[in-house]
Amino acid sequence: MSQSAAPSVRTRLVREAERAVYDRAAAYKILDEGFICHVGFVADGQPFVIPTSYGRVGDSLYIHGSAASRMLRRVDEGIAVCVTVTLLDGLVLARSIFNHSMNYRSVVILGTARAVTDGKEKLEALRLLSEHILPGRWAESRQPNEKELKATSVLRLPIEEFSAKVRQGPAVDDEADYAFRTWAGVIPLTLVAGEPIDDARLMPGVKTPEYARGYTRKR
Amino acid sequence: MSQSAAPSVRTRLVREAERAVYDRAAAYKILDEGFICHVGFVADGQPFVIPTSYGRVGDSLYIHGSAASRMLRRVDEGIAVCVTVTLLDGLVLARSIFNHSMNYRSVVILGTARAVTDGKEKLEALRLLSEHILPGRWAESRQPNEKELKATSVLRLPIEEFSAKVRQGPAVDDEADYAFRTWAGVIPLTLVAGEPIDDARLMPGVKTPEYARGYTRKR
Repeated sequence: MSQSAAPSVRTRLVREAERAVYDRAAAYKILDEGFICHVGFVADGQPFVIPTSYGRVGDSLYIHGSAASRMLRRVDEGIAVCVTVTLLDGLVLARSIFNHSMNYRSVVILGTARAVTDGKEKLEALRLLSEHILPGRWAESRQPNEKELKATSVLRLPIEEFSAKVRQGPAVDDEADYAFRTWAGVIPLTLVAGEPIDDARLMPGVKTPEYARGYTRKR
Repeated sequence: MSQSAAPSVRTRLVREAERAVYDRAAAYKILDEGFICHVGFVADGQPFVIPTSYGRVGDSLYIHGSAASRMLRRVDEGIAVCVTVTLLDGLVLARSIFNHSMNYRSVVILGTARAVTDGKEKLEALRLLSEHILPGRWAESRQPNEKELKATSVLRLPIEEFSAKVRQGPAVDDEADYAFRTWAGVIPLTLVAGEPIDDARLMPGVKTPEYARGYTRKR
């Protein structure tokens, strides 16, 4: 397992190269904070982009495939995908329109996704997906049965060809524009968990667990 | 301008059809709350998915194209794209692993995106993009000059072929599972704006504007 990957021609960033991050550890930190990806694939020449959940384990990304299963019929043989994870961190308001920007962290992975077909491996992949989103939840839940396992699809994508982009910090204006009296600054944006909503049919005495109260993606 | 669109074969949802929303007004409400989309396109047979900002005006989506410009060289002639907007609303924790889900609202648009090349139209498109993200900001900012306009690319995508998916509400468990003592419920998730961070080089006396303090995407 290498700690970094040289960018391929396809993932090398030409524009805004100063925002590029090719370090594997930095990319994994972004992947581990997120849990929703956008999977792109081609069917009959048409690109499709489907949001779904994912989990990372080592140098593999496991992708929950149910939503895309109609499109992914050929997925047993492997399908070329682009998986993109984007974390939005803020609006960057500059004095000029042109220098307005966003603070964000994103990872783009290119590769071939394959369906996990072996029952034991699929169960383990589902566990990893669940643990990625909410550690500890798997053990407390009723486990998948054979029928449910069959109705669920999971794809595995090796993380080999990837790039990451990060934009952080204040607005950068043209020197002449700093004389403008326009307000400039950053409006931070965060995905925040609210107060958990108890299910109406909880068994008597069941309390809201700590992991539901203090849910955060910060890693 | 029609108020609804019949789903095409390509956008009709086969799985989880109960979550499908084909109403144009409902899809536009989702598009208007979001401002980051994931644009999918194909280059040399490989799908790419790039996050970028967008704005909707009438039945058009304007997409900020700078990030993807290397890939979108042929965009003057038009390029087949899939633009997906996803708003995440919560984690849905069921008693069984299989019935775990997410609350979300998403829109998928298929079509041909074309670069806006006319200078006047491009300026107007950039204004609409800016107003979509932060109404009123355009008028306060230093306007784009010729050089900046040339360095910016904007794509227009007509909203013709689209579908939306919405999952809201509590977990739905198998009847037998309601006897489990596992906690179930929803952890709401919201993109929240924090306290604005003033730029270090503001002119003396410039105050943080109201639109930066109370920023919200709720429409």
